[in-house]
Amino acid sequence: MLIPGITIKKGVCQLLALNKFSVGQWLKTFDTIIFDADGVLWRGQQAIDGAPDTFNALRAMGKQAFICTNTSETSREKLCAKAQDLDFLIAEDEVMSSSEALARYLQQRKFNRKVYIMGGQGIADELECVGIESLPLDEGKMIGSQMVDYVKNITLDPQVGAVAVGLDKDFDMLKLAKVGCYLMDPKVLFLATNRDHSFPVAPGHFIPGSGAMVAAVESLAKRAPFSCGKPNTFICLHLLRQGVIKPERTLMVGDTLYTDIQLGYNCGFQTLLVGTGNNSLQDVAKLQRSKLPLMYQQIPDLYLPKLSDLLKFLPSRNC
Amino acid sequence: MLIPGITIKKGVCQLLALNKFSVGQWLKTFDTIIFDADGVLWRGQQAIDGAPDTFNALRAMGKQAFICTNTSETSREKLCAKAQDLDFLIAEDEVMSSSEALARYLQQRKFNRKVYIMGGQGIADELECVGIESLPLDEGKMIGSQMVDYVKNITLDPQVGAVAVGLDKDFDMLKLAKVGCYLMDPKVLFLATNRDHSFPVAPGHFIPGSGAMVAAVESLAKRAPFSCGKPNTFICLHLLRQGVIKPERTLMVGDTLYTDIQLGYNCGFQTLLVGTGNNSLQDVAKLQRSKLPLMYQQIPDLYLPKLSDLLKFLPSRNC
Repeated sequence: MLIPGITIKKGVCQLLALNKFSVGQWLKTFDTIIFDADGVLWRGQQAIDGAPDTFNALRAMGKQAFICTNTSETSREKLCAKAQDLDFLIAEDEVMSSSEALARYLQQRKFNRKVYIMGGQGIADELECVGIESLPLDEGKMIGSQMVDYVKNITLDPQVGAVAVGLDKDFDMLKLAKVGCYLMDPKVLFLATNRDHSFPVAPGHFIPGSGAMVAAVESLAKRAPFSCGKPNTFICLHLLRQGVIKPERTLMVGDTLYTDIQLGYNCGFQTLLVGTGNNSLQDVAKLQRSKLPLMYQQIPDLYLPKLSDLLKFLPSRNC
Repeated sequence: MLIPGITIKKGVCQLLALNKFSVGQWLKTFDTIIFDADGVLWRGQQAIDGAPDTFNALRAMGKQAFICTNTSETSREKLCAKAQDLDFLIAEDEVMSSSEALARYLQQRKFNRKVYIMGGQGIADELECVGIESLPLDEGKMIGSQMVDYVKNITLDPQVGAVAVGLDKDFDMLKLAKVGCYLMDPKVLFLATNRDHSFPVAPGHFIPGSGAMVAAVESLAKRAPFSCGKPNTFICLHLLRQGVIKPERTLMVGDTLYTDIQLGYNCGFQTLLVGTGNNSLQDVAKLQRSKLPLMYQQIPDLYLPKLSDLLKFLPSRNC
């Protein structure tokens, strides 16, 4: 990335090390900003301090803004409502999610069969939005010692033509067996919302991401899924194709290197890592020491401790 | 493999195509037979037709016999009792299992901390046999919408120094999260009993193997386990080291190419596939067409539809 008037050394550039003029020049290099949500704009149910003000100030400057999240448990409609509740100025068609991408993928393939979901309600909701039928979500069920009988008696719906795997709180052996049985038929599509490893919820404690579920199914079915979320460009490909996003004039802001920053690399966006979520500057340093050239794709162009650090560089609304 | 007096074409040799003399000559080429259990000797709770007679007749000829199974849910003691109930003449020290191998691995490392088990009681029993303490097995528990709180409140035992993953009927998100939290500490060992994909229980229906569980944990922990069972030679390495088994005089009999036959290849044994379990001659043909040379290691030397087909070639006990 080039910022007029300043020389950037190889590797990540710390935005806070630049002066107001340079940041101002940099801000002119893009028209669109794609924000990851959790870890950038909010954490759980709370907005990250100063994030709504910064987000809204960037919009007020005329920047086009999108939210792009790998969350699949919640529909785009509910995600938008959440963002609005937390004071982000955003509309539903400015929200992209991995379950919305999955539904769009099937719609584009003119898929007309049913979907078995191992994941959250968000997938079912998004499928419904595009007129695709899914089986009711299986509730978690204890299997105990009766596993063999349970599995023998699994009823498979012959109308199912795709299995969708996302983060599933009720993930268990019975569901895994069911998904495995459906995927024995090579004509049944295998789709994943995303492959995130895990999400921290407290120091040393984290929730497994859908990547763990997908890996289990992959090992069982002996085939890889089409993964619709970040870092697959598919999640924003429709906007690129329609010319809504110009890659060379777009900034991707994220907290996770292997999803957000890799997506930015894959799409040819500028990339900015914020330190309020999954990854830190130390993680970037590890990538820089890596001997695997592919890992360099996850090195961001720029770094900010938190999104609201940008506020002081932005024109005040009264100007 | 060379059988005196006959020429074997490249690839698998069908034993039933040989005459009695050739089979007799072949029988003289080994002193030890290692049998896989499920799919070779029994299926579920029932002996495979004629298998006990054949097994016992080979022993009566003076062949040394072992059972070597990737089953981890049951202790070696119970496996031996089951085999004896089904009329196989076998002693406990002639049974090898993946959970016994796991316990032996930790014993050899002089491991003196506790083990968290995601798997069956067999692992706990085998660890107890070698004096290693494990935490009580977690019972499957529904998490529902409280996942974040559950995970935040997971209590980790600081005495845990290893995680053991095997086939776990009660596999769920909470267990997966717990295992993930333990494995965040790089000093905590990550062990797997085995990586079998799945087990058929009815046409089109199968139980996920521990491989699915291991893949989920591997994706979450971002590291690979030491897998103790077949095809890792570790499962029978003690017998090789002690000279109890001479590789060049040993035959491995199995129904699964990627575990049994690969183990035989890894150890330098002769290998015999029987068609009463996971894999068929068609699967062997697929391997022969493979473009991945590593896959050729799973091609057996010999094939028999079922173990008892060997009976007619064996000397009767009255001779």
